[in-house]
Amino acid sequence: YFILMGPEHRPRPIFRQLFEAESCTYTYLLGDPETKEALLIDPVDLTVERDVSLIEELGLTCVMGVNTHCHADHVTGTGLLRQRVQGLKSVIARAAGAKADVLLEEGQKISFGRYHLEVRATPGHTDGCVSYVMDDRSMVFTGDALLVRGCGRTDFQQGSAHSLFKSVHSRLFTLPGDCLVYPAHDYKGRMSSSIREEKQHNPRLTKSEEEFVSIMKNLNLPYPKKIDDALPKNLVCGS
Amino acid sequence: YFILMGPEHRPRPIFRQLFEAESCTYTYLLGDPETKEALLIDPVDLTVERDVSLIEELGLTCVMGVNTHCHADHVTGTGLLRQRVQGLKSVIARAAGAKADVLLEEGQKISFGRYHLEVRATPGHTDGCVSYVMDDRSMVFTGDALLVRGCGRTDFQQGSAHSLFKSVHSRLFTLPGDCLVYPAHDYKGRMSSSIREEKQHNPRLTKSEEEFVSIMKNLNLPYPKKIDDALPKNLVCGS
Ligand SMILES: [Fe+2]
Ligand SMILES: [Fe+2]
Repeated sequence: YFILMGPEHRPRPIFRQLFEAESCTYTYLLGDPETKEALLIDPVDLTVERDVSLIEELGLTCVMGVNTHCHADHVTGTGLLRQRVQGLKSVIARAAGAKADVLLEEGQKISFGRYHLEVRATPGHTDGCVSYVMDDRSMVFTGDALLVRGCGRTDFQQGSAHSLFKSVHSRLFTLPGDCLVYPAHDYKGRMSSSIREEKQHNPRLTKSEEEFVSIMKNLNLPYPKKIDDALPKNLVCGS
Repeated sequence: YFILMGPEHRPRPIFRQLFEAESCTYTYLLGDPETKEALLIDPVDLTVERDVSLIEELGLTCVMGVNTHCHADHVTGTGLLRQRVQGLKSVIARAAGAKADVLLEEGQKISFGRYHLEVRATPGHTDGCVSYVMDDRSMVFTGDALLVRGCGRTDFQQGSAHSLFKSVHSRLFTLPGDCLVYPAHDYKGRMSSSIREEKQHNPRLTKSEEEFVSIMKNLNLPYPKKIDDALPKNLVCGS
């Protein structure tokens, strides 16, 4: 006996979060329950069959496989999805410098049925990172720009801590406090956060720009295991 | 600009799904954004510190640690939580035969702020299994009674395939099709399902009772690794 009212009295979209355990990547399925149009954000090659089964069982038509950026830790599923799902287009930001069917610009809208996502450039982890904001600002898919109590590293792929700091503060922390944050990864079993929570409790992004840059410079992270395999593949994710 | 209307014009409750990777267990945090009263469903001992941090950061008062049943694959976090969180009560169904501060009966309501969960006896995986139904029937926490495209095993802890079949059909599949199913586990990175989906696509529970019983009899699952350690501990989860 609950009624969800929107500007056009739309119901809530179909929404599923999915997890790939090897790279701790979250994939998101969004769909229109009426038109059945759907898209996947950050699918992983290893879990494409699971995702295709789910799409079929839900009776959805998946029109896009959308990447938040050119990943270094896993191979995107968008290449395989194009082969498995008729009409599906691979999508990534033009700034990522990768091949895809659709190259996105800042401010562009990508639609699934009566819903859309807004593309926000959030460079810093890589220079082609974007976040996707749900049209009613209830959710944002942040890729590696903003993680639960963390953020993506900035020490390769044209990363820049200065640029990441600016992106998060100007393009993400300006969203409503209640807006739910859905990241590309979490390594501690946390699935989501909110803009309010990260503004208050993110151990890195509550600091000054100077402190943030110094934290990011001193992380001393190991070279990503899969990068030499994953990057060249992800640069042609849509081919 | 979305408005969520309920019988008393309540906002949506705070809701977080959390994952413990060793036993692939989902823990759920539910809270009232106004009164700040919260509860945890199926916390795991290994992730209690993570959960306590989150509760503190969200400014919540966690009043209950609630188990869906006496787990055999991990040690419940309710014992540790009682020590870490002042006033927190451990909760389990009376039929589970375990010690706890609160022993639940079929049909009982457990409240957090302006919200409550309804207790439904769903025996079969164990004879003390219950499911928790959100007051507006938008979500059900099914424990091991109903999993995404599966169900809990019935070959130990007084398990009974007949009883599980009856529980799922009479107490879960009678919920609204849109009701989201949140299980205690998934081993393939799927976080939720819906009653409609499971009624249509659950490979076991779409079968006749006879076929279901035969499937469950022939699973040939290994003896659970942690059972000899976990069960005695979980039988005193609240002490
Ligand atoms: Fe990345
Ligand atoms: Fe169990």
